[in-house]
Amino acid sequence: MSGWVRVVGLGPGAAGLLAPDAAQAVAASSDLIGYATYLDRVTLSEGQIRHASDNREELARARNALSLAAEGRRVAVVSGGDPGVFAMASAVFEALEAGPLAWRRLDIEVVPGISAMFAAAARLGAPLGADFCAISLSDNLKPWSVLEARLRAVATAGLVIALYNARSQARPDLLGRAFAVLAEILPGGTVVAFARAVSTEAERIDITTLAEADPSLVDMRTLVLIGTAATRLIVREGAAPFVYSPRFVEASA
Amino acid sequence: MSGWVRVVGLGPGAAGLLAPDAAQAVAASSDLIGYATYLDRVTLSEGQIRHASDNREELARARNALSLAAEGRRVAVVSGGDPGVFAMASAVFEALEAGPLAWRRLDIEVVPGISAMFAAAARLGAPLGADFCAISLSDNLKPWSVLEARLRAVATAGLVIALYNARSQARPDLLGRAFAVLAEILPGGTVVAFARAVSTEAERIDITTLAEADPSLVDMRTLVLIGTAATRLIVREGAAPFVYSPRFVEASA
Repeated sequence: MSGWVRVVGLGPGAAGLLAPDAAQAVAASSDLIGYATYLDRVTLSEGQIRHASDNREELARARNALSLAAEGRRVAVVSGGDPGVFAMASAVFEALEAGPLAWRRLDIEVVPGISAMFAAAARLGAPLGADFCAISLSDNLKPWSVLEARLRAVATAGLVIALYNARSQARPDLLGRAFAVLAEILPGGTVVAFARAVSTEAERIDITTLAEADPSLVDMRTLVLIGTAATRLIVREGAAPFVYSPRFVEASA
Repeated sequence: MSGWVRVVGLGPGAAGLLAPDAAQAVAASSDLIGYATYLDRVTLSEGQIRHASDNREELARARNALSLAAEGRRVAVVSGGDPGVFAMASAVFEALEAGPLAWRRLDIEVVPGISAMFAAAARLGAPLGADFCAISLSDNLKPWSVLEARLRAVATAGLVIALYNARSQARPDLLGRAFAVLAEILPGGTVVAFARAVSTEAERIDITTLAEADPSLVDMRTLVLIGTAATRLIVREGAAPFVYSPRFVEASA
């Protein structure tokens, strides 16, 4: 049997949010590659080989996957959420482009998943109900000047913002700087939500405002959602409020 | 048994991309509400009631769902893709906020799904591998001036753009106007992909450039992806090229 690569999204964590196609690709693989935290979600069958690595070694992991597939192995590269959203898919294609031409004849497919952003939004209500964007706050990948310009642009344009990699150990102050930039543009009362590890036992939701948002509540597993000035709360007795962004924009906006 | 509402995402179309939680919410419901095209994907069991409606009656559909739940019915409101992305979730919360206070005590949950955007991205490669945004091109919901400002902002800031509702029967010229705005900012060679009905029998993928993108190829089922200047093609013999957006941004970008 010839080799293949499936770049698989395991979803936010709950088994009920893992798509059948993703489960099947994992089950059919001979080799599983990924960050150890995600591989820990998978129960290995007899004979399946686990290649765990550190979270920062994405390109090495991608090369390893392609190289194993070229040897005839059936390789599942696993990510949490959707593999195309600040996860492994882009690294795999980067490695493919830079690698031997023979790799381009490999059978490579991406299997989509439910992203952390959509799981968080579902838990909160419908905060992404209007135009929205997803921005990675990691400044390993781009300089702060680019990050700052993007934050200003999208907040000014009225998009809801989902921040990935909002808290890095190497640069713990970045999220505070991002909030400060956004506070120059958006009202202090703008809804901000911290959605940690949604759909897992470690889930924690905090709903606050831009003026009061405390970056120290955010860790590596937390997605940060920042509403627009129009994003609303629906208060309920005995339950967390729902957060939603209206579909309609007035002409004056 | 008391009533509930589940706002459910059916995913892009293929059964293998439907999350188990969504299938279960549909199976447990007494009443299914949605646009007929999405309801057609669901096989009804004995006793389940189908409430099909036109695609534009979102708020009436949302009120109907909440009203039925208040009568003790178990209501699944179904959307394609993810229900929080230009679909029914926002309408349900809009109806909830405007409705009787008693509705706020209802058991309401959103069940996320794999969006059309992620299914399209997976088929193409990893076009959303960098910061990205999702914008609905419908000017039923916002004036053209807002749309144009948003397109200019996100293209200038270097985000990949996913356009939903890119072709409406009422305003077939909007997509051409959007391309013209983007062409003032992005190089003519910027990768554009049309991804129609991904994961269904009607799937069709067209990869082109901003300079050559033909809006007449786009219909109501087509998602339009517009890369950044850095988005790349990986050419393959005998197969469509892969499209991916690099994770890294240079300081000069």
